[in-house]
Amino acid sequence: MSATRYTYLGPEGTFTEAALRTLPEAATRELVPMVSVPAALDAVRGGEAAAALVPIENSVEGGVTTTVDELAKGTPLMIYREVVLPIAFALLVRPGTKLKDIKTVTGHPVAQPQVRNWLGEHLPDALWESAASNADGARLVQEGRFDAAFAGEFAAATYGLEALVTEIHDAANAETRFVLVGRPGRPAAPTGADKTSVVIWLGDDHPGALLELLQEFAVRGVNLMRIESRPTGQGIGNYCFSVDAEGHITDRRVGEALMGLKRICPKVRFLGSYPRAGVAVADLRPLRPGTSDEEFLAASDWLTQCQDGRF
Amino acid sequence: MSATRYTYLGPEGTFTEAALRTLPEAATRELVPMVSVPAALDAVRGGEAAAALVPIENSVEGGVTTTVDELAKGTPLMIYREVVLPIAFALLVRPGTKLKDIKTVTGHPVAQPQVRNWLGEHLPDALWESAASNADGARLVQEGRFDAAFAGEFAAATYGLEALVTEIHDAANAETRFVLVGRPGRPAAPTGADKTSVVIWLGDDHPGALLELLQEFAVRGVNLMRIESRPTGQGIGNYCFSVDAEGHITDRRVGEALMGLKRICPKVRFLGSYPRAGVAVADLRPLRPGTSDEEFLAASDWLTQCQDGRF
Amino acid sequence: MSATRYTYLGPEGTFTEAALRTLPEAATRELVPMVSVPAALDAVRGGEAAAALVPIENSVEGGVTTTVDELAKGTPLMIYREVVLPIAFALLVRPGTKLKDIKTVTGHPVAQPQVRNWLGEHLPDALWESAASNADGARLVQEGRFDAAFAGEFAAATYGLEALVTEIHDAANAETRFVLVGRPGRPAAPTGADKTSVVIWLGDDHPGALLELLQEFAVRGVNLMRIESRPTGQGIGNYCFSVDAEGHITDRRVGEALMGLKRICPKVRFLGSYPRAGVAVADLRPLRPGTSDEEFLAASDWLTQCQDGRF
Amino acid sequence: MSATRYTYLGPEGTFTEAALRTLPEAATRELVPMVSVPAALDAVRGGEAAAALVPIENSVEGGVTTTVDELAKGTPLMIYREVVLPIAFALLVRPGTKLKDIKTVTGHPVAQPQVRNWLGEHLPDALWESAASNADGARLVQEGRFDAAFAGEFAAATYGLEALVTEIHDAANAETRFVLVGRPGRPAAPTGADKTSVVIWLGDDHPGALLELLQEFAVRGVNLMRIESRPTGQGIGNYCFSVDAEGHITDRRVGEALMGLKRICPKVRFLGSYPRAGVAVADLRPLRPGTSDEEFLAASDWLTQCQDGRF
Repeated sequence: MSATRYTYLGPEGTFTEAALRTLPEAATRELVPMVSVPAALDAVRGGEAAAALVPIENSVEGGVTTTVDELAKGTPLMIYREVVLPIAFALLVRPGTKLKDIKTVTGHPVAQPQVRNWLGEHLPDALWESAASNADGARLVQEGRFDAAFAGEFAAATYGLEALVTEIHDAANAETRFVLVGRPGRPAAPTGADKTSVVIWLGDDHPGALLELLQEFAVRGVNLMRIESRPTGQGIGNYCFSVDAEGHITDRRVGEALMGLKRICPKVRFLGSYPRAGVAVADLRPLRPGTSDEEFLAASDWLTQCQDGRF
Repeated sequence: MSATRYTYLGPEGTFTEAALRTLPEAATRELVPMVSVPAALDAVRGGEAAAALVPIENSVEGGVTTTVDELAKGTPLMIYREVVLPIAFALLVRPGTKLKDIKTVTGHPVAQPQVRNWLGEHLPDALWESAASNADGARLVQEGRFDAAFAGEFAAATYGLEALVTEIHDAANAETRFVLVGRPGRPAAPTGADKTSVVIWLGDDHPGALLELLQEFAVRGVNLMRIESRPTGQGIGNYCFSVDAEGHITDRRVGEALMGLKRICPKVRFLGSYPRAGVAVADLRPLRPGTSDEEFLAASDWLTQCQDGRF
Repeated sequence: MSATRYTYLGPEGTFTEAALRTLPEAATRELVPMVSVPAALDAVRGGEAAAALVPIENSVEGGVTTTVDELAKGTPLMIYREVVLPIAFALLVRPGTKLKDIKTVTGHPVAQPQVRNWLGEHLPDALWESAASNADGARLVQEGRFDAAFAGEFAAATYGLEALVTEIHDAANAETRFVLVGRPGRPAAPTGADKTSVVIWLGDDHPGALLELLQEFAVRGVNLMRIESRPTGQGIGNYCFSVDAEGHITDRRVGEALMGLKRICPKVRFLGSYPRAGVAVADLRPLRPGTSDEEFLAASDWLTQCQDGRF
Repeated sequence: MSATRYTYLGPEGTFTEAALRTLPEAATRELVPMVSVPAALDAVRGGEAAAALVPIENSVEGGVTTTVDELAKGTPLMIYREVVLPIAFALLVRPGTKLKDIKTVTGHPVAQPQVRNWLGEHLPDALWESAASNADGARLVQEGRFDAAFAGEFAAATYGLEALVTEIHDAANAETRFVLVGRPGRPAAPTGADKTSVVIWLGDDHPGALLELLQEFAVRGVNLMRIESRPTGQGIGNYCFSVDAEGHITDRRVGEALMGLKRICPKVRFLGSYPRAGVAVADLRPLRPGTSDEEFLAASDWLTQCQDGRF
C-alpha cells in the first residue's frame, strides 16, 4: 500500500534512514531504501510511495544538488517536513582491526571533505576511494574490499562492523537537512515558525534580474534563509534559484512576494510551506513593521474604503 | 444649491476661471470666485459648494503650496479632474497707455518670475509691486494705482483694460495645472490614462524612508509623475510627500503599491484617481511586463492553486 | 569695499537681519538690505558684496523657492554657513492701538499661514493683505495703511511701533533656516557635523531616475536631510531636486556619492559643504558600518594590493 | 622546474587535459595529472607547479564545488585564464564489445546526470557505478571491471578502448568551464571583454545582506555573470557567495564595486581578472551610461574642482 510506504535515500544504515526515524509517523510506515534520490522521488511521483525522505543541504558541502535539481524538474512534488540532523562520522572496521592496520578507507564522496583533516592527522597514508553511499562503504568493508569506512555509528550493527573512532567531523556544527517530499497537496497549517521553498527561473540575459527577484521579497519584509543558484541546463550563465524564505504561503507578505515573482519571472515552482525544524516561534526575529497579516488586512480595508470614497 | 455651485480661486478674470470654463459642466454650474484657495476648498468641505477648482502646480514656480498643503490637512477632500492650461500673460493697461508711460507694474507674485526677463528687456525701470492675484492687479490698474498689470488676456474685458502686449512668458511651455476638488466619493472609472494622487508621511528620522517609499511604487512598476516634499510643520527636517503616480486606484499594481505605503508609513492620504489631462491611452509608455491587471489576476489564481496544493 | 559688505534680504528689521546678526563676523561687516533674494545674490555674483544671507527653508512653509531656484540657476554660488532661527511673530501696532481696534493686518505672505489660527481666534474679522516683507508690513502700519503687522518683535523699534502681542506662531517649533552665500571657493574644513548641498537634474522621462539618484546616496550610507523637488521650467513633469546630505564633500562616502550622481545625471550643481547649525558631533547618529574615511582608505589599499597581485 | 610545470585534474585522458591542451603555452609545459582538485592546487600553493587547470563550472551540474571551495579557502590563489569546452561523452568499450553486451557502466558522478536519458533509452538495464573520474572509468573498463565507461572520445586511445557511441549528452549546449590558477600576481591587462571573480562572505544573520551585496555591483552598472552560494562550514544558513562579474579590476566601475564590498562585508577574496573565453569585445552589451572609465575620471575631476571651489 503506497499510503503507508515511505521511500528514502538508501541503503539501510545511512544518515537519511536515521533522519527518517526521527519522524513519529515513521514507526507506522513501511520504510523502503532506494538506490538514489531520483529513484526515491520517482516512487512518490509514480504513486508507489506516499512520501520520500531525501537530503537537501549539508552545512559543509552545500546543497545536495541532485535533490535540488530533481525537485525543480519533472512532475511537481512538494515538501511537507524538514529534519535537521547533526552529522558525525564513525570509522567502521571489521572487529579487531586497529588504526595502524588501515591502508584503505572509503565513504560517500560528500563525507570525504568532512573527514579530510582527521584523515590527514590520523591516517595520512591511507588511500581513499569513494563509495556510492556511506552505508555502501560499510558493506564494502564487511566484504573485505576496504579496511575502514566512514559512516554513521548506527550503521555498524547493520554490517557487523565496530566503530573504532566516533564523533569524527572536521567542522564543528556539521549537520544535514533532509526533506520529506510528497505529491502536491494542501500545505500543513502555519505554525508561526515556517519556511517556504520555491524555485525561481530568471529571464534570460537580463542584468539585474536577480536583484529584482530579491526585491520582491525585501519590499514585503520576507527574509531569505537560503538561496542556491543552479544551472538550468541551457548553457553556462543560465541559472535558476532555489530559495527558502521565512514564513508560510498563507502569510500575506509571503503570498504577495510569491505573486510578485510569478509576475516578473518566466517560471516559479512552489515547493511547499512547512514548519522549520528546531525553531520555536519565540526564537524568531520580530517581523519588520508593516508586514504582519493584521497590517496587510488593515491596508486592504483602507484600500477598499479609498476605492469606494468612504473616508 | 450646493450641488450646482462650483467655487474657484478668484477673483473673476484669473487663469483659474479660464481653466474652470474649459470643463463642459461649467456651463450649467454657478461659478463662485473665492478670495483664497482655503476659502474655495472650505466651501466644499462645508457643503456650500459641490466642487472647487484650484491651481496645484505651475511649470515655472512649482507646486502651489497652499493647495498642496490644504489637500494634505483637515477634512479629507478628493480630486476628480485635472485641467492643464498654457500660461501666457498679457500686459493690461488703461486704454491709451503706451509702453513708455509705464512706471509701475503689478501682478500675482507667481507671475513675476515668469515675466522677469521680459520686464528686464522691455521695462527695465518699471517698479514691480505684487498684487493678491493677477485679476486683482488688473483691478488696481483700473483704479489707477498701477500703470500696468500682468494677467490673462481674458481679464482685459472684465476690468475695462486693453492688452498692450500678449503672449508674454519667459519660459516656453509655461503651463499651470488645476484640480477639481470635491468631497470624498467613488473615483471616476479608469480610462486607461489615469493618475492617482496621494500624500505620504514618512516615519520620523528614519534614514532611507524615502527610498523605501519609492520602492513600494517601483517594485510594482508604478511610475511617479510628480513628487513634492512638504514640511509637516513639526520642525525642519520633517516632511511629507505629495505624489502623483501613473494609473488608477482600481489598477491592481496601483492598489498594491498604495497598500504597501499604508503599511510602512505612519500616514497616507488618498487624494483621488482621475483622467490625465491631454494624454490619450495611445500616448502611454507600455506597462512594465508583469504589472498588468491580467498578470496580477493570473498570479493570484496561481497562488490559490499553490495554497490548495492543486498543481 | 565688497570684501566687508554682506547683503541680506531686507528691509531692515526682518528675521533675515536678525539671523545675520547672530554671525560673529557680522559685527565687522557692512550689512546691506536688498529688496529681494535675487538682488541680494546678484550683488554677490557681481562682486559688490562678499556674501549674502537669505532664507532657504521654513519649517511651516517649506522651501523658500526663490532662494532654492536662484541657487540652482545662473552664475554658480556657494553656501558657506547656515543659521537656524526660531520664528515667532509679534503683532506690531502704532502705540496705543488696542486689539479691538484692529480691522486690517498685514505681513509677508509666508507669515500668513503661520498665524492663521491665531488670527481666526483673536481677530476673526480682521482683513489680511500681504506685504512685500514682514518689515515692509511694519512700515505700512507706521504709515497708517494697516492697523497691525505680523513681524519679528525686533522690528518694532525700527518703525516706531509697539508689540501688542508676542510669541505668536501656530506651529510649535516654527523656525527658518538661512544660508550665507558667497562666490565659489574652497569649502570650510569639515567639523564632523557637516552638511552638503547639491542640485540634481534628472534625465528626461526616465521612470525610476529618482530611485537611482537616491541609491547613489544610500549605497554609500549617506543620509539625506532634505529633498525638495523643483520644476526646471521645461514644462510640467520636469524636475530637479535640491538636496541636503549629511557629511562633507571631503568625506569619502560623500565624494563617491557625488561622483556617482555626476555620472548618471545630466547635471549636478555643488552648492557647498558647511557646518550644521546647532548640531554637535556627539548628537549624530553613528555612521553606517563600512562608510567611514578609514574604511574607505582601507578598501582602497586593498584594491591596490589586488590590482598588484600582492596578497 | 616548477615554472614550466602545470598540474591538472587527472588522470590523463580527462576533459581537463583536453581543455589544458587548448592553451598555446601548454605545448611548452610539463603537464602533470593530479588525483584531485585540491592536489592540483596544492602543488601550485607549494611552488611545485606554476599553475593548475581545474574545472570550475558545468552547464549541467553547476559549480564544481570542490574547486569553488578550494579557491575560497587556504592560501590565496588567483585565476589567470578560463577555458570553456563543449562536453560530449563517448561510450568507451573494450574492442569488440557490442551494445547488447553491456551490463555495467561507469564514469564520473558528474557524468551520470548528463547521460541519464541516453542510458534510459539505450541501456535501460545497465548498472551504473561511479568512478573517481571519467578517465579512471576508462581504466576500469580496460581492467575488465566494467563493460563500458562514459568519457571523452580522446580517452579511448590512452586506455586501448574504442568509442562505441559518440556525442552523447542529454542537454544540448553542455559545456564545462575550466580555470587556470596560479599564485597571486598582477592580473593580465584588460582586453575589454574581461571577467572578475571574487568570493564574498556575508555578515552573520543580517537579512538583506545579499541584496546590499548585489546593490554594490548594480549601482556601478557592473553585471553579474555567475553567483553561487556556498556554505561556510559554520552551520546551515551561513553562506559565502562566489561571484563572476563583467569587467576587469582595473575598470573603475569594477574597482569601486569591489571596494564597496570590501567595506560592507566581513571578508572578500579577490580571485582574479581575466579574459572571457570565446567572447569578443564586439559581442558585449554596451556599458550602462555613466559607468565608463572616462565618465569615472570626468566625475573625479569634477569632484576635485568642487572641493577646491573652482567652478
